[in-house]
Amino acid sequence: MGGMVGTLVLLRHGYSEWNAKNLFTGWVDVDLNAQGEAEARRGGELLKETGLLPDVVHTSVLRRAIRTSEIALNTADRSWIPVSRSWRLNERHYGALQGKDKKQTLDTYGEEQFMLWRRSYDTPPPPIADDDEFSQVADARYALLPDELKPRTECLKDVVGRMLPYWYDVIVPDLRAGRTVLVVAHGNSLRALVKHLDGISDEAIAALNIPTGIPLRYDLDENLRPITKGGTYLDPAAAAEAAAAVANQGR
Amino acid sequence: MGGMVGTLVLLRHGYSEWNAKNLFTGWVDVDLNAQGEAEARRGGELLKETGLLPDVVHTSVLRRAIRTSEIALNTADRSWIPVSRSWRLNERHYGALQGKDKKQTLDTYGEEQFMLWRRSYDTPPPPIADDDEFSQVADARYALLPDELKPRTECLKDVVGRMLPYWYDVIVPDLRAGRTVLVVAHGNSLRALVKHLDGISDEAIAALNIPTGIPLRYDLDENLRPITKGGTYLDPAAAAEAAAAVANQGR
Repeated sequence: MGGMVGTLVLLRHGYSEWNAKNLFTGWVDVDLNAQGEAEARRGGELLKETGLLPDVVHTSVLRRAIRTSEIALNTADRSWIPVSRSWRLNERHYGALQGKDKKQTLDTYGEEQFMLWRRSYDTPPPPIADDDEFSQVADARYALLPDELKPRTECLKDVVGRMLPYWYDVIVPDLRAGRTVLVVAHGNSLRALVKHLDGISDEAIAALNIPTGIPLRYDLDENLRPITKGGTYLDPAAAAEAAAAVANQGR
Repeated sequence: MGGMVGTLVLLRHGYSEWNAKNLFTGWVDVDLNAQGEAEARRGGELLKETGLLPDVVHTSVLRRAIRTSEIALNTADRSWIPVSRSWRLNERHYGALQGKDKKQTLDTYGEEQFMLWRRSYDTPPPPIADDDEFSQVADARYALLPDELKPRTECLKDVVGRMLPYWYDVIVPDLRAGRTVLVVAHGNSLRALVKHLDGISDEAIAALNIPTGIPLRYDLDENLRPITKGGTYLDPAAAAEAAAAVANQGR
């Protein structure tokens, strides 16, 4: 049993009020809409139906991930498990694009710049001003963070850098204890984690989309590497369909 | 600042599906009904309106308390705060009465026996059988507890005994750190805590009812004793009205 570790389950939150409006969200604390709530319930049903019952849950500090975890776990009769939250699991900070319309941004800046900001590994959007209405610099939930830790913009590389300490220091010990660990987070914080787990290159990660609301199971070896590369979606057909839809988002 | 401690806020969950049916609930994991959800939202609005914003939340492992905390904190824009849960904050285990109709129990056993089980400090109801459909002995959430810690029935004195270690070891350190601490729990686990805080006698505690859905604020001195005995409800008029209604429950 020396090398045995627990099972990791990733769940990306579903549609929010701003996904529906096609706005860049990032660290803005937008709530789920009715479709997002239904996706969370479906996620919980998949956990229950497949008997993949989390022993502990980790979420970001953004309510669309928190409420997804609450709805999914209540549906799976597991709302009583221990909870941890961290800003390190937050969505990528979208800088000055936060609150902006995706289509309008595409029209203004053109396809190349738009895709660079959305998909390049190391080019962040312009930083957001601290007095911008969509800045989180004064948000109570980050009050204890030293100012230099509060991002004003992030590229995916930045997300990998600030997410990995939470993975190594908080999630891995839960896995080493043999637990089934649920992580409920966001498109880009989960892409960052999957990039690390599957050893995806800086170039290839651009093409990876994680569908919303469908739990993604990773069984890990003693080195915390996936036994099956890419993991296994609890509803593979729905995952394939959803991934295609996400790839077309913003067009 | 040596003697300063944080603020304690107690919140009793609202109506559940079994309150509406007038059944003894105890450790049975019954969900809130629509009225209970509305009570939780109102509790969250009171926190927000009065600016009493929790830094950390403690709940039982029963979903009616967990969902109350989730709804109240989401309403107060504080769903991102750290969460701890413990069976030590659970409702009193109602023994063989769990799942029984309150009115029918009153008719069968008579007023004296009924009130003794409901209100005496040290007389528990008969224990529940481990194979009873309303026993929690095989419930996954208690799987790590040694068998001798799993109650088969409890009187209020038993609740005080199993609740206080959580108060001293987990909640008090949060208060000593200057935090505003929200505890979302149940009629009897909160009566047990209030009995301790206000130094209420074994006899006098019988008359104390804590209304549902109305946050009760305790400012504590350096010895963790209330500066104002009995604390302060965030909506005193509604609390007085609700306390009277609870006193007549089951009649």
